[in-house]
Amino acid sequence: MAKISALSGFPEWLPAQRRVEQHVIDVFRHVAELHGFAGVETRAVEPMSQLLRKGETDKEVYVLRRLHAEEGEDADLDRTLGLHFDLTVPLARYVLEHQNDLSFPFRRYQIQKVWRGERPQDGRFREFYQADLDVIGQDSLPGHVEAEVAVVMAEILAQLPLPGFTIHVNNRKLSEGFFRSVGIQDHEAVLRGLDKLPKIGREAVHALLMDEAGASAAQADACLDFAGITSEDGSFADAVRGLGGSGELMEEGIAELTAVLARVQASVPGAIVADLSIARGLDYYTGTVFETFMTGHVSLGSICSGGRYDRLAADNRHTYPGVGLSIGLSRLVSRLISADLAAASRPVPSAVLVSVSSEETREDSEAVARALRARGIPTEVAPTAAKLGKQIRVADRRGIPFVWFPAQEGADHAVRDLRSGEQIEADPATWAPAPEDLTAQVTPVAR
Amino acid sequence: MAKISALSGFPEWLPAQRRVEQHVIDVFRHVAELHGFAGVETRAVEPMSQLLRKGETDKEVYVLRRLHAEEGEDADLDRTLGLHFDLTVPLARYVLEHQNDLSFPFRRYQIQKVWRGERPQDGRFREFYQADLDVIGQDSLPGHVEAEVAVVMAEILAQLPLPGFTIHVNNRKLSEGFFRSVGIQDHEAVLRGLDKLPKIGREAVHALLMDEAGASAAQADACLDFAGITSEDGSFADAVRGLGGSGELMEEGIAELTAVLARVQASVPGAIVADLSIARGLDYYTGTVFETFMTGHVSLGSICSGGRYDRLAADNRHTYPGVGLSIGLSRLVSRLISADLAAASRPVPSAVLVSVSSEETREDSEAVARALRARGIPTEVAPTAAKLGKQIRVADRRGIPFVWFPAQEGADHAVRDLRSGEQIEADPATWAPAPEDLTAQVTPVAR
Repeated sequence: MAKISALSGFPEWLPAQRRVEQHVIDVFRHVAELHGFAGVETRAVEPMSQLLRKGETDKEVYVLRRLHAEEGEDADLDRTLGLHFDLTVPLARYVLEHQNDLSFPFRRYQIQKVWRGERPQDGRFREFYQADLDVIGQDSLPGHVEAEVAVVMAEILAQLPLPGFTIHVNNRKLSEGFFRSVGIQDHEAVLRGLDKLPKIGREAVHALLMDEAGASAAQADACLDFAGITSEDGSFADAVRGLGGSGELMEEGIAELTAVLARVQASVPGAIVADLSIARGLDYYTGTVFETFMTGHVSLGSICSGGRYDRLAADNRHTYPGVGLSIGLSRLVSRLISADLAAASRPVPSAVLVSVSSEETREDSEAVARALRARGIPTEVAPTAAKLGKQIRVADRRGIPFVWFPAQEGADHAVRDLRSGEQIEADPATWAPAPEDLTAQVTPVAR
Repeated sequence: MAKISALSGFPEWLPAQRRVEQHVIDVFRHVAELHGFAGVETRAVEPMSQLLRKGETDKEVYVLRRLHAEEGEDADLDRTLGLHFDLTVPLARYVLEHQNDLSFPFRRYQIQKVWRGERPQDGRFREFYQADLDVIGQDSLPGHVEAEVAVVMAEILAQLPLPGFTIHVNNRKLSEGFFRSVGIQDHEAVLRGLDKLPKIGREAVHALLMDEAGASAAQADACLDFAGITSEDGSFADAVRGLGGSGELMEEGIAELTAVLARVQASVPGAIVADLSIARGLDYYTGTVFETFMTGHVSLGSICSGGRYDRLAADNRHTYPGVGLSIGLSRLVSRLISADLAAASRPVPSAVLVSVSSEETREDSEAVARALRARGIPTEVAPTAAKLGKQIRVADRRGIPFVWFPAQEGADHAVRDLRSGEQIEADPATWAPAPEDLTAQVTPVAR
């Protein structure tokens, strides 16, 4: 048999780790559905012509070929398929394809794996989960949705076993308006430059703004001072005006940003901060932009990003504006696990292992298991009628907290808590573990 | 923008249909975990050398290529990746790779998409969910596990909105022992022939057995009579012996099949039947084999298949025998939807739409929504402060059963059931919908 070895970039979890990932997915789904978002999945593939829509041939895409493809089958970009690299391109396609069957605003969440054909030596994930939340309007979408989506995400993040988080919000109109009002034409070059601030620092970005955005030294200083502004309330606005910013577009951005801040603070106090350094390199955002950092793990980069895009998709009849946020779920889970921030209380779902005293009485043990399962208690039966000490060690090794000893002649049913060693008589029709022992819990690791 | 059109073979669901699929996944997971099976996912790709292990170059596999691959990067089968076409090959690799970190018997379930590079015109699914349940032993695995896995599957299927189902079980040792005892050497050719019985009928198989398995007319008759045997209890054994079968291997198969039948009947009465026509074409099964048919939809083929394989994987130190069953989940869900067998009670999770009387009072509506969500009631707030009649139509179109009218000067909170038209005063801190209205229910469609 071929040698087995892990594939770099394709993370895979052991059962206890997968339990952590599943918990994050469950929390996301639960909170999203509480807010009326419907779950949707799209196929994993799109035609290459869709994936490279804007001629972005630099995208790291996995192209598919059938092992038994006929000659010429993959010559046509419309017929050649690639694995999706995010969930936004598929969403745009899904909305256009199903527009007559969806009701707008369309509130959907989507948790699926995406693939990026990164170079093998890059050490980046090549397969990972993204968890997206978007509201898509038909032709129009009210501004309050921007805050609404951020509130849902804040509630999701607050329920996850994180050390803490802060959503950083900015507004493209505010940035563009400010850059223009200090005399810079190429505002996209400034955004690209500011995007690099955390990585290369103020001085290098200053040089970049002069070289690539055509800024004077004073203009570059103004942009960097602008990017240094943060506030938990509307006070960022005066700071911006104090730097000499003005104009209709900028004021529109200030009004939108102020509204988002106020609405999110009202729902989830302390979850959000205005941070004018947030740029989001991607060019399709048109207003509010978000990035989210985990307390103590800023080096991980943004764990949840997104914003407003006025034109997710369009056809001859309609334009579809949207607001969306996306969690890089695998990357987040990977950090939770590797930094020992969260753990599952056990690697198996079973709360109880029912022992078997002999193969002839296995059915008695099965009957106990059925009675426990009927009341929602995850239960397995010992795989063999080994000596009781060995069966207890099996449960212990699997992390199962309770071992059940079925009634025998001269002895009632009994159940032992392997952690305390305490053993009590018990009735399979009524006994239940403590609520926290019923299922495998995922909790922050105590320090 | 490029023309949008559905891709044949890549099913995609609208929100209400996805709700049905999600329900099937949830039931599978819930029952599997009740029985102590841990959820695991494997990466979507395997090296082509793994996927084509036994030189099966006829497999319909999607091969991956990085869009920006360096020259020669995909010349090496060990480095070239393909999408997995089932969850068994990845399980074998996962068990070997992680054997030191798993505890055996390893009880795992796995619900993931798989891909098959079928010819586009075949009309088969090229991307679909499989839901697998396996118990893997290290070096040995007791026979009672075969019944245990069937019981779990029977409980899963019993909780799904199916018109009914029957698990058909046979045993390879019984078949092989019988074919040998009537004088046929090439028992695999007989199994392959019998596998075609539902498609081509008795006469054609008779000819096939004579042509390809070297059977005489009398031997072919005996094999076909054997395949015609079914029973809900152990009476199949006498029928087999009555056809002239005998021998140690056959009796071993009879004993195993009798035990599986009895154990499953004891746990889930009426769920299983011995059916000696079941062959399972794949050659890795070594004992018990299962197929499952949905009542009234036998033409769909088996919805859940599997069996015992004594050698899922092996290395220099250990052999890993297993028992597994797999549901072709997408195919099943597709039939439930297309034949109108099951439906979701609504396409969105929301039980309540809170109306908004003006944008100035949106926060009052948000406060109501927060109070309802805090008690687990899925709620959304009207997207705009349109006329109330329009807001009610929005809820109606989305399938949301209740519209909430927040308190205003001179009027208490009120909630209206859109189906009955009944409107009552209500307190956001205490009101709750009926349990069946709380979440979108998936139920069999009433006839």
